[in-house]
Amino acid sequence: MKSILKITIFFLCATISAQQADYKQDSTQLREIYTASLTKGKSYAWLNYLSNRIGGRLAGSEADKKAVAWGKAELEKLGLDKVWLQPVTVPHWVRGEKEEARIETNHGKFKVDICALGGSIATPKEGLLAEIIEVKSLAEVDSLGDKVKGKIVFFNRAMPAEKIETFRAYGASVDQRYSGARVAGKYGAVGAIVRSMSLKIDNYPHTGVMSYGDNTENEKIPTAAISTNGAELLSTFLKGKGKIQTKFYFKQSCQNLPDAQSSNVIGEIKGSEFPNEIIVVGGHLDSWDLGDGSHDDGAGIVQSMEVLRLFKELKIRPKRTLRVVLFANEENGLGGGKAYAASVEKNNEKHIVALESDAGGFTPRGFGFTCNDENFEHIQQWKPLFEPYNIHIFARGGGGADIGPLKKDDNVLLGLRPDSQRYFDFHHSAADVFEAVHKRELELGAATMTSIIYLFDKYGIK
Amino acid sequence: MKSILKITIFFLCATISAQQADYKQDSTQLREIYTASLTKGKSYAWLNYLSNRIGGRLAGSEADKKAVAWGKAELEKLGLDKVWLQPVTVPHWVRGEKEEARIETNHGKFKVDICALGGSIATPKEGLLAEIIEVKSLAEVDSLGDKVKGKIVFFNRAMPAEKIETFRAYGASVDQRYSGARVAGKYGAVGAIVRSMSLKIDNYPHTGVMSYGDNTENEKIPTAAISTNGAELLSTFLKGKGKIQTKFYFKQSCQNLPDAQSSNVIGEIKGSEFPNEIIVVGGHLDSWDLGDGSHDDGAGIVQSMEVLRLFKELKIRPKRTLRVVLFANEENGLGGGKAYAASVEKNNEKHIVALESDAGGFTPRGFGFTCNDENFEHIQQWKPLFEPYNIHIFARGGGGADIGPLKKDDNVLLGLRPDSQRYFDFHHSAADVFEAVHKRELELGAATMTSIIYLFDKYGIK
Repeated sequence: MKSILKITIFFLCATISAQQADYKQDSTQLREIYTASLTKGKSYAWLNYLSNRIGGRLAGSEADKKAVAWGKAELEKLGLDKVWLQPVTVPHWVRGEKEEARIETNHGKFKVDICALGGSIATPKEGLLAEIIEVKSLAEVDSLGDKVKGKIVFFNRAMPAEKIETFRAYGASVDQRYSGARVAGKYGAVGAIVRSMSLKIDNYPHTGVMSYGDNTENEKIPTAAISTNGAELLSTFLKGKGKIQTKFYFKQSCQNLPDAQSSNVIGEIKGSEFPNEIIVVGGHLDSWDLGDGSHDDGAGIVQSMEVLRLFKELKIRPKRTLRVVLFANEENGLGGGKAYAASVEKNNEKHIVALESDAGGFTPRGFGFTCNDENFEHIQQWKPLFEPYNIHIFARGGGGADIGPLKKDDNVLLGLRPDSQRYFDFHHSAADVFEAVHKRELELGAATMTSIIYLFDKYGIK
Repeated sequence: MKSILKITIFFLCATISAQQADYKQDSTQLREIYTASLTKGKSYAWLNYLSNRIGGRLAGSEADKKAVAWGKAELEKLGLDKVWLQPVTVPHWVRGEKEEARIETNHGKFKVDICALGGSIATPKEGLLAEIIEVKSLAEVDSLGDKVKGKIVFFNRAMPAEKIETFRAYGASVDQRYSGARVAGKYGAVGAIVRSMSLKIDNYPHTGVMSYGDNTENEKIPTAAISTNGAELLSTFLKGKGKIQTKFYFKQSCQNLPDAQSSNVIGEIKGSEFPNEIIVVGGHLDSWDLGDGSHDDGAGIVQSMEVLRLFKELKIRPKRTLRVVLFANEENGLGGGKAYAASVEKNNEKHIVALESDAGGFTPRGFGFTCNDENFEHIQQWKPLFEPYNIHIFARGGGGADIGPLKKDDNVLLGLRPDSQRYFDFHHSAADVFEAVHKRELELGAATMTSIIYLFDKYGIK
């Protein structure tokens, strides 16, 4: 009995001391990763090139093609085991001429800033002038029914400022942008104007994808986002009803062209022990066209590239296969994510982990995980390793649009969670430019991603 | 025995359920505080006024006087129980004309951006031209000794980018600014140029206080900060030694005038149960002169004012006396903090808690506490209440320069810890302007401060 106890204690101690050794080694490795990213990282210089030399890169555009070529060329410089392109068919929507809009009242005309929503049709060439009616929700349009006929519907429910995570405020409001024109069109409205998805009051209109659902051609109406300043002004005029007659004029020449070709850009380091277990890290290479897409999602692209670069630079030989994917066409179709998942199915590849960065290049706060309970518990053990880097959020729920189709019962999807406060100041607008990204914040994000990938590679999943 | 057990269990259950009720009530209260700050807060509008209508407010300046009058007037509008000014004698240093500087080489002259350090003397009227020698530390000057005689010493040790908290990177470098001229002056150097305390490479020089210590008048030499871009350029020229002859020219007309008068601005709400237990919240009203002092420390000022305003608006009647102090002259003398502490001593007031916000108006991450073990443990209980607001850091070590003199063995000093990544881009430079402060980040800070003050007021300290 005594000897069994002794043996048990021996193995227990051996286990604990092995765990301690692992902890120490991991802690040292993370410190090296953060130091390398902050002192000789490449993410910021890459972002500078992507943003300032290539710029906004909507799916199907010339810049989209340039971005694909650039991504492939840069990955090829890293000495990975393999770099390739995966063809993706993408929608090809173009904005056309810069949009025009004004509030027309019996007290004068007032220019406001708008931008067509992605997927919208154009107005008539001469523009569209009509009465405008303000609503706060899709349901309100349903209740107004025929009363919106012949009018422009103005969706003006602001993002709720009391939400701490701005993504929740966005989620609580974006139905207006995505479905406003669809619902208003059903009732015979002639246009839909949507308050920009931003918590800041300024003159930037914010674009984004919309859908006509199964509306008939007749029920498809042009739709645009108005800046928050413009929305406030328009709403003020509309409150003066009776004394002030208010109409709205807008003109846009956007169009949906035939589908185009783009590519996912993929690079990998073959795993030394379990090459068939694949770990993916990625962001999306396409962006909207108004800014240069630095936060959305240039940041996620260069951080994902930096993960593999840091493995090479720090000579960390992965046990499992690490793959970086620069996904095509997240913004208006998700063609890249779907094409990648289809190839995974076809080739019967086993993806154990997929990490996406698509929430801006801000100070990283942690991760959101979509996985089973066992893995969630497994991952929580690593939390203390991240404390020195002020990474505290290891929460449930997360991933990303591009990696979503990779979900299996037993794998782990995760998304980087940067600080969200400033994101919607820039998102999908002309304000999303290189200068809005902070070098250290971007680099901390890249280091945080590299660190968790290092741990997933070393310990696998349950 | 059985009945004793029953009674014990009864009281235990009663205690637990009372604790649960408290937790629920506190949780609701914090939610109300955050919502009020984010949806109808006053901090941002206050900061707009202080930054854009009053601007940079160096101790003893006209703007400093205006800021005092503004602070008092605004506090008086809040319906506090008492608002008063406390006289403070402050140093009166003035910058004079805009500084000029250039690198003079046999290949041409190159203008660079500098600013005099606070407390520095002027150069001769015509400026100062001399050979310049680069060093990385004070110790290196000691080892060079007489070799710096007649020369300008260029302190060029960069802030270490690998530190996660930028305040630590600052702490590791700022001895060059504070003591560079003192040490170089001892060995007969004629000037000291210091690389700006910033992790960003740009053209902003960053000022800040310096000291001649006990140097004789002869050993006092003019000193200025050079922008990081300027420092890099200068260092590159100096590396070309032999081929390139490099001298440095600078001209500044700053001077130390006789002491001036300023004031601490103080407002309080009398405690309903323990009026003699005082809880202080504050920041410093003075700032450097190059920007408008929005982050340093306009943010801390308006957040501190917001704490008392939110108590009034939400009709939270404090049990203890809450006091807001807008401290004078933190930047170059700490006159305000010292005068306040002296009055506390004199009036035999009991300060149980003092909270300072002086680390910029960025997303709050938590607090640093200086207190005994018992209180540190007591405070940790509140941590879960802050989780929904992404406040995770409840660390040891913290407070602030102004509240430092209030430390007792049994009280609690604490400092708000905002995200530190961007702070030194702005600190003490012309880049520290209103536009650099994000509305929501500022408001989250104010709510976080109000929440912890609410808890300190409700539960007291151990």
